[in-house]
Amino acid sequence: MSIQKPTGTQDLLPGEIEKWQYIEGKARELCRRFNYKEIRTPIFEHTELFQRGVGETTDIVEKEMYAFKDKGNRDISLRPEGTAGVVRAYVENKLYGEPDVSKLYYIGPMFRYERPQAGRYRQFHQFGIEAFGSTDPSLDAEVIALGYTFYKELGLSGVTVEINSVGNPACRGVYREKLQQFFAPVKDKLCKDCQSRYDRNPMRILDCKIDQQYCEGAPTILEHLDEECETHFQAVRDHLTAMDIPFQVNPRLVRGLDYYTHTAFEYKAAGIGAIDTVGGGGRYNGLVQQVGGNDEPGVGLGLGLERILLVLQAQGVELPVKQRLDVYLIGLGEAAEKEIVRQLFLLREAGLKAEKDYQGRKIKAQMKSADRFEAHYVAILGDDELARGEITVKAMATGEQESVALTDLVQKISSFQQ
Amino acid sequence: MSIQKPTGTQDLLPGEIEKWQYIEGKARELCRRFNYKEIRTPIFEHTELFQRGVGETTDIVEKEMYAFKDKGNRDISLRPEGTAGVVRAYVENKLYGEPDVSKLYYIGPMFRYERPQAGRYRQFHQFGIEAFGSTDPSLDAEVIALGYTFYKELGLSGVTVEINSVGNPACRGVYREKLQQFFAPVKDKLCKDCQSRYDRNPMRILDCKIDQQYCEGAPTILEHLDEECETHFQAVRDHLTAMDIPFQVNPRLVRGLDYYTHTAFEYKAAGIGAIDTVGGGGRYNGLVQQVGGNDEPGVGLGLGLERILLVLQAQGVELPVKQRLDVYLIGLGEAAEKEIVRQLFLLREAGLKAEKDYQGRKIKAQMKSADRFEAHYVAILGDDELARGEITVKAMATGEQESVALTDLVQKISSFQQ
Repeated sequence: MSIQKPTGTQDLLPGEIEKWQYIEGKARELCRRFNYKEIRTPIFEHTELFQRGVGETTDIVEKEMYAFKDKGNRDISLRPEGTAGVVRAYVENKLYGEPDVSKLYYIGPMFRYERPQAGRYRQFHQFGIEAFGSTDPSLDAEVIALGYTFYKELGLSGVTVEINSVGNPACRGVYREKLQQFFAPVKDKLCKDCQSRYDRNPMRILDCKIDQQYCEGAPTILEHLDEECETHFQAVRDHLTAMDIPFQVNPRLVRGLDYYTHTAFEYKAAGIGAIDTVGGGGRYNGLVQQVGGNDEPGVGLGLGLERILLVLQAQGVELPVKQRLDVYLIGLGEAAEKEIVRQLFLLREAGLKAEKDYQGRKIKAQMKSADRFEAHYVAILGDDELARGEITVKAMATGEQESVALTDLVQKISSFQQ
Repeated sequence: MSIQKPTGTQDLLPGEIEKWQYIEGKARELCRRFNYKEIRTPIFEHTELFQRGVGETTDIVEKEMYAFKDKGNRDISLRPEGTAGVVRAYVENKLYGEPDVSKLYYIGPMFRYERPQAGRYRQFHQFGIEAFGSTDPSLDAEVIALGYTFYKELGLSGVTVEINSVGNPACRGVYREKLQQFFAPVKDKLCKDCQSRYDRNPMRILDCKIDQQYCEGAPTILEHLDEECETHFQAVRDHLTAMDIPFQVNPRLVRGLDYYTHTAFEYKAAGIGAIDTVGGGGRYNGLVQQVGGNDEPGVGLGLGLERILLVLQAQGVELPVKQRLDVYLIGLGEAAEKEIVRQLFLLREAGLKAEKDYQGRKIKAQMKSADRFEAHYVAILGDDELARGEITVKAMATGEQESVALTDLVQKISSFQQ
């Protein structure tokens, strides 16, 4: 009996993996240009980190974590998101001691025990960036711009940015009360989650898919921003306008997590139905302290790679992922086959992508393989040619053949590939 | 109170991460040339997979796995090595139905609950390749050659290959009995592990660090190979010789796992003390069936990345990982600072690596940042210049300055970088 992969996980196989490589390569390339450096934190952390850094009362921490005890009886969880680990590493490694702003990115697997459905997996993958140590609104705009440019350069169309300010703790306190007053008359009619949100974080009611009917006419946070928050939000919008990045202000945009301050944003993609959010982020000036560090500001974003692949597919975008073979080698006869193994190695040593048969197949089957690998050239060696020190090279595009000295084969194929 | 990373794990931070990127990039580049395609399997699998694919009585499975129950009460384990998952995916996704040999590679984290020590972590990272569907000895040689070339191109010196044949089940059965006869008189003196190995897999006694004194004069597997095994082993050695890859036959080389057949090999590096093995692998013609698939042959290798970093450091190898900034922008005054944000975005859109200050620092501190980032150019914009539509560009190497039209800045910096 064979063993299956665990429910909700997937194997990324050749044919599909090239898209992942391309998307991740694009993320890395953009981070290089925007001067973000990679950080890798462990796949698991102490469970307490996520209780503090994501929130003990969130669905993620309450219901969805892969939490377990290790052999040393420590409470450990597979990371359900990327920010908490990066913040922990920032604090633990004292990166705040550095003179420049810490601009970091991560790409990797995250884990949530959710009901598997289209595009949603228990092991999923995120690309995220986090910038610590500055309250400059140009940094908020930079983070938003990086994500926008990422989608654009991947070829997604119709991506727009929705932004909001969720204020600072002071003005949010005032707004929170206003919101509770507003919802008080309908509190009993709200869904069970929102009844609990009413006390904990009433702003999240605005985000609820079920209770939209009760949100009509609710006061907005934007009417309650103090001067600091208003100035910050205006500057972010001015920078985005100057950068020519299309955005809309959405005063209902809240994002799930309590630690956001000032800027919150989401990216929406066209043509993929109701759940059109492809990523988002915001500023979190309180988080570093919450995880046990100094009072350092931060801003970041997180994008789901599975979701991006879904959108690329829905929009029919073809990524440029073809990797053709430079040359396919065929040996006819025992001595020639042996020489082919050596030539293959020399070609690869020289940086060329080269392949041969490993199954003792007839020449016809080998030519088919060369076609499947889209080889630019096929080089065929018989025992007679071997005796003369020559090999026949055939250009697959034109069918033209020429005889080449074996000692020149690497140089010849290299020069073809210029 | 701040939270620490879990014992035995590490954060890979800027300054160190560039080495990882370089090493992984080299692995990917070599796999491209050798025509291996990436596969990614889940971080966790059903525990049963490792019991079957690694071995129920191995230390790895008995003592070192991160095994736990998920919320659906499934027995799940973080993968302790890479081969089992790849074999599972090969079977489950029916990759054996493909006309060409499946040549796959993986890079990623693995997990073993071991006592942490220098260069040994509970989350560690491996690069591995697996080739399924051929018994051709040229494939064994190719796998060995890929690993060898990897070390060589990274700049490791003094790497040698040790190879052995561990035979097939038939000749190993005969040898096993001979070995038990040989060890029978000293059985009670062997270490506890080896007393249990005596019945289960006496070949592994030869590998034991403790019992070397009892191994003197033991019969070797090479004296017991049948004709098929002898022919295969000779062909592998002939190919390696033709490829000019230095190797030594070590008849004591066993590798830990029971499923190896024919070729077993290890890479040794010079100058790093007693534990000098940096990677290894072998042929495993029985494994695919053991995991529940067809009777398909396979051969592969696995290399520990932490270990490679240790050796690079011990040998004083400097990897070419410098990534200088193309340009650092400085704005003097409010209007100029705003324009700098826009120019920064335009430069990055055009593919350049560009940066600015986010902390409102004085020009002197900003120039120091530009130095730290090793910027090729600094571009300084004052409000006067902004009014004239110009910006001053300074080449950091020569100190030369010139005034450039703001509308030409991107093109100018791009042309400098050619």
